[in-house]
Amino acid sequence: MPEPIHQVTFQPDNITVDVYRHGENLLRVAMAAGVHINASCGGNGTCGKCKVIIDQGKVESEHSAKISDEQWEQGYRLACRTKVIDDLIITIPPESRIDNSALKRKTGGQRHILKARDLNTLVQGLTINPAVFKCYLELPPPTADDNMSDLGRLMREIKRAYKYDHISTDFHLLRRLSRVLRQAEWKVTVTLVYNPKGFKLIDLEAGDTTKDNYSIIIDVGTTTVKGQLLNLEECRIAHSNANGTDADNENLCAEDAKYNSQVRFGEDVISRIVHSQKKGGLEELQQAIVGDINDIITQLLKSADIRDDQISHLVIAGNTTMTQLLLGVDPKYIREDPYVPTANFFPPVRAVEIGIKLPDYIHLYVFPQVSSYVGGDIVAGVLGSGIFQREELTLFIDVGTNGEIVLGNADWLVCTSCSAGPAFEGGGVKNGMRAAAGAIEQVRINPETYEPMVITIGSQKTMGICGSGLIDAAAELLLTGIIEPNGKFKRDLDTDRVREGENGWEYVLVYADQTASGIGDVVITEGDLDNLIRTKGAIYAGCRILLESVGLSFADLDKLIIAGGFGQFINLERAITIGLLPEIEPEKFLFVGNGALLGSRLVSFSREMMKDARRVADMMTNIELANNMKFMDEYVAALFLPHTDTAAFPGVMKILKGSG
Amino acid sequence: MPEPIHQVTFQPDNITVDVYRHGENLLRVAMAAGVHINASCGGNGTCGKCKVIIDQGKVESEHSAKISDEQWEQGYRLACRTKVIDDLIITIPPESRIDNSALKRKTGGQRHILKARDLNTLVQGLTINPAVFKCYLELPPPTADDNMSDLGRLMREIKRAYKYDHISTDFHLLRRLSRVLRQAEWKVTVTLVYNPKGFKLIDLEAGDTTKDNYSIIIDVGTTTVKGQLLNLEECRIAHSNANGTDADNENLCAEDAKYNSQVRFGEDVISRIVHSQKKGGLEELQQAIVGDINDIITQLLKSADIRDDQISHLVIAGNTTMTQLLLGVDPKYIREDPYVPTANFFPPVRAVEIGIKLPDYIHLYVFPQVSSYVGGDIVAGVLGSGIFQREELTLFIDVGTNGEIVLGNADWLVCTSCSAGPAFEGGGVKNGMRAAAGAIEQVRINPETYEPMVITIGSQKTMGICGSGLIDAAAELLLTGIIEPNGKFKRDLDTDRVREGENGWEYVLVYADQTASGIGDVVITEGDLDNLIRTKGAIYAGCRILLESVGLSFADLDKLIIAGGFGQFINLERAITIGLLPEIEPEKFLFVGNGALLGSRLVSFSREMMKDARRVADMMTNIELANNMKFMDEYVAALFLPHTDTAAFPGVMKILKGSG
Repeated sequence: MPEPIHQVTFQPDNITVDVYRHGENLLRVAMAAGVHINASCGGNGTCGKCKVIIDQGKVESEHSAKISDEQWEQGYRLACRTKVIDDLIITIPPESRIDNSALKRKTGGQRHILKARDLNTLVQGLTINPAVFKCYLELPPPTADDNMSDLGRLMREIKRAYKYDHISTDFHLLRRLSRVLRQAEWKVTVTLVYNPKGFKLIDLEAGDTTKDNYSIIIDVGTTTVKGQLLNLEECRIAHSNANGTDADNENLCAEDAKYNSQVRFGEDVISRIVHSQKKGGLEELQQAIVGDINDIITQLLKSADIRDDQISHLVIAGNTTMTQLLLGVDPKYIREDPYVPTANFFPPVRAVEIGIKLPDYIHLYVFPQVSSYVGGDIVAGVLGSGIFQREELTLFIDVGTNGEIVLGNADWLVCTSCSAGPAFEGGGVKNGMRAAAGAIEQVRINPETYEPMVITIGSQKTMGICGSGLIDAAAELLLTGIIEPNGKFKRDLDTDRVREGENGWEYVLVYADQTASGIGDVVITEGDLDNLIRTKGAIYAGCRILLESVGLSFADLDKLIIAGGFGQFINLERAITIGLLPEIEPEKFLFVGNGALLGSRLVSFSREMMKDARRVADMMTNIELANNMKFMDEYVAALFLPHTDTAAFPGVMKILKGSG
Repeated sequence: MPEPIHQVTFQPDNITVDVYRHGENLLRVAMAAGVHINASCGGNGTCGKCKVIIDQGKVESEHSAKISDEQWEQGYRLACRTKVIDDLIITIPPESRIDNSALKRKTGGQRHILKARDLNTLVQGLTINPAVFKCYLELPPPTADDNMSDLGRLMREIKRAYKYDHISTDFHLLRRLSRVLRQAEWKVTVTLVYNPKGFKLIDLEAGDTTKDNYSIIIDVGTTTVKGQLLNLEECRIAHSNANGTDADNENLCAEDAKYNSQVRFGEDVISRIVHSQKKGGLEELQQAIVGDINDIITQLLKSADIRDDQISHLVIAGNTTMTQLLLGVDPKYIREDPYVPTANFFPPVRAVEIGIKLPDYIHLYVFPQVSSYVGGDIVAGVLGSGIFQREELTLFIDVGTNGEIVLGNADWLVCTSCSAGPAFEGGGVKNGMRAAAGAIEQVRINPETYEPMVITIGSQKTMGICGSGLIDAAAELLLTGIIEPNGKFKRDLDTDRVREGENGWEYVLVYADQTASGIGDVVITEGDLDNLIRTKGAIYAGCRILLESVGLSFADLDKLIIAGGFGQFINLERAITIGLLPEIEPEKFLFVGNGALLGSRLVSFSREMMKDARRVADMMTNIELANNMKFMDEYVAALFLPHTDTAAFPGVMKILKGSG
């Protein structure tokens, strides 16, 4: 674990917490510590409710019209607009706080969210040797006595300088090979790509461009598409220099995300497959996702201020349907019993051939799949989290639009997929959205006043609610008794926030005057809760079935890894409270964030990892849940908060009884 | 040597010759036997001069207005319209013959022209296992217990049934894989292609289509483009059935040829390279040759009445410039000292990627090159003639627009190229044409009357003269004293056929009334003879330099192989007479016809030959003649008929003195 940088003590409750990042937002520190401060605008400074007094230590804080000059002199600040740059003692004035007793009992659970720099440590023996790499060469110019072909001369020098032999060549490069060699006066940089059959020469540039070696990695999700731009060269340098260098921060140059434009043709993979069977449907879907990827690439290049010819590699991980649609491969049979994908291993293809706007030498690596419903994103997650290398019995859960689950260790891996629905990515949720700026990602509710404390991503005006916010909100609604275990609102509470709206009963998280323009009230409806319960129920049931298939139970697990696009601040206890996760020892949980990007990053950095990706996909034995009656029983049993089998959640039940 | 089928005896000179083909043309039989029969129309029956009397035996012959009913009853026939189907005794009546004494002295030299069926015997240990081949499979349909991916299922079955493993897949096939498998109800034929790194799956068809396995081979010459359609399956069957089956006749389904349309941008490779440096020039040249290949493919498919989806492979051999132009690779540096090609080994590429109109699964195999002026056509010829397998010291000469020469055996190979010019392909010759229907391919001239005997290809009306006809004509003009050894016409001969025309002095081979419409008189000019002399001089000089480079002379040769597009009936003695070939023992000569097609055929039939092609290209050491002063001396010395060094041609000189 990293060392804390600052400590903040909150008064009057005398709660001290460690802060790991210089400049951390004070409202977030309070939220993480389980210290309630009123905040109804998401953290953008407009409601003015989160006033605190800085008793000791330095902060950076914005002036606000909500704080008088007199208050400012007394040390009043808005917590949401204040950065922690020192050890602090803070007093929360009465108007900003509530009695914390109801909340304090629920804090204390450890959050194992790994920081980016720790992710590479999940896998063992990672050496940095990117699958696509560059070599600088100075060739002797041809003479009458040495006038072999240009390609032969290049290969001879690669062999002499780097010992690589039997390199194949991309045909398209040959068309400019001779010109570039001469324009560069025989001082050139070659780009080679590793593949299972050896090396392939894909690009040639004038001069020494070895420093320009970037990879773009894309997670093609059913609901959300995410991209990152990685600097492969910086990573190599960082890795070779020393331990403790923050390699990951160095090499992550930019990131971007957007909704998958295919959403307009259907929310889940099944509706997309249905659309693909219409005339022109496959082309529409293919062009939609390629357009999204092109948009993301444009944005990444712009953010990092680099040219497209500095890119060497494109790595994409997606579920099986997304992968086939991206490649223009008809997904029809994924949906038809017995659920057969076209291929699990896709040959390398030049990105331009599927319409991606990158220079024509760039090859697309597509993560291998396991089955129709366990795709490359899951293989990437299993790879990235190192399960396949360890003896520990690990359960890996990736919560996206589908919930995919993998169980096993270095010796065996079984996996399955359950139709979880896109609730955690904002789908099927009235004010749902993906984890982007303005999304509510953390929620606490005052058990007495039923008033919420919400924080949005980027402390922006509220736009909606993302997965982690939804889990928080559902758990809080349950813990505060606003909803029943069946997800229905109590009709008789003394608060205006619970009301009958257009879509039935709902709870108002943020009123329209505190949300972004045009958004209106941000609410959670009974329909949203229903979707959430079905989602969490499917995942929990899937885990049970997978464990049962090998004669094990949750108690046997050494580790439970959670991947997925919930947003940054998923709260373990809240996830257990609603029965999404089993009630096991908190120290067994590990959150790894986006598994697809995690694995893609490793494959960009390491050709051994690329080999391992194939091996992992081969290792994974798929278990089908469709038509599985035991799964249906488990699913129905899980459609309750936390579960109909209350004995499996003793801790949650104890709290519920205490608060009820 | 094959067994003769019939014998024909010509009276009154009592000359008996063997006939190897049932239905052979009687005029051709006479020509081959050195028996003169008047014939001035090329053999199409219009001049009526070649009357003969059938004394004994059966013939098939056409009635002709030139033969009266009475003559027909007496056994008169036109030799040019008569087929030999029996042993014959023929009388040549006085009006059809001349005193043969002047000609007979020149007959008797053996002609070693291999028939197609013998060509495969040039190489040792040829097993028929085409580089592109098909396998029929019946797959178990997927079930709930066995629902691996479609591609995985296919690979599993290929491995089970045929033991092939680690097969890569062409990306584009995946887009239709699942559909075809199901439409075919899991009974399919796969097409696999061998390449140095293993096998690649390129096509999948419903049902058993293993019988539809054709290859198209193309010789991309500077002047002429030739194509053949081969039936790979028939070849396999023929080969496995028995010796003596005429495998080659079975598998050659169609052939076609046309001029290289690039000719409009320049006659030789240098002028093409110059054009390629103009704006849009490379694209123009690339599209021109691709258009020619597309035309030939269309014609081949039409001739053989097969669909393009029955084609499995496309093999192309050309010189280095033609190859680079075809692939769209700038040939600029081929022309600039030190004469460096872009690549000698081109990676396989799908034919559609360079604009060839064939189904998108078909891969293009391009023969490897040796240097800027020794290209894939020569490697194909060396491969096809088996030089690289034998201990015999062999000189290989390919006469096309350039003259390329290879010397060596199984242990070593040296090669060079000399700018011979396109005279033998009809270029730079007033009535020159390639070896196609209507081209004069054989010429004899009566030494007393100076009247010619000409035979055209296909016995069509004369269109022009091809390489073999030109060699015959030049030799006859020299032997009959119509021209001097410097290639100039004697001005004072008693014949109208030698005259001063628009382009200077010339000899009329066929008058306009016997030539095809619009052709006019077909003549040989002093300019034509000058081009011919320079062409043969360059080739002879090149051979001398190559031999000298390894301290050898013509006398050391065990074999001299001639390849090239001369037409079918090149006459060895005539070629020696003009000094194109050295005067060595006739039995050492071997004519193999088109070397590029010969090698391409072997590569289509045998993946071992494909491996050998690369090995042969690697073995060949290139010697540059450009800027080689010794070559210039040898060249100037050879600009004479037969040569300034008359001691090297004692036999020719003896005949010339006898006839002079």
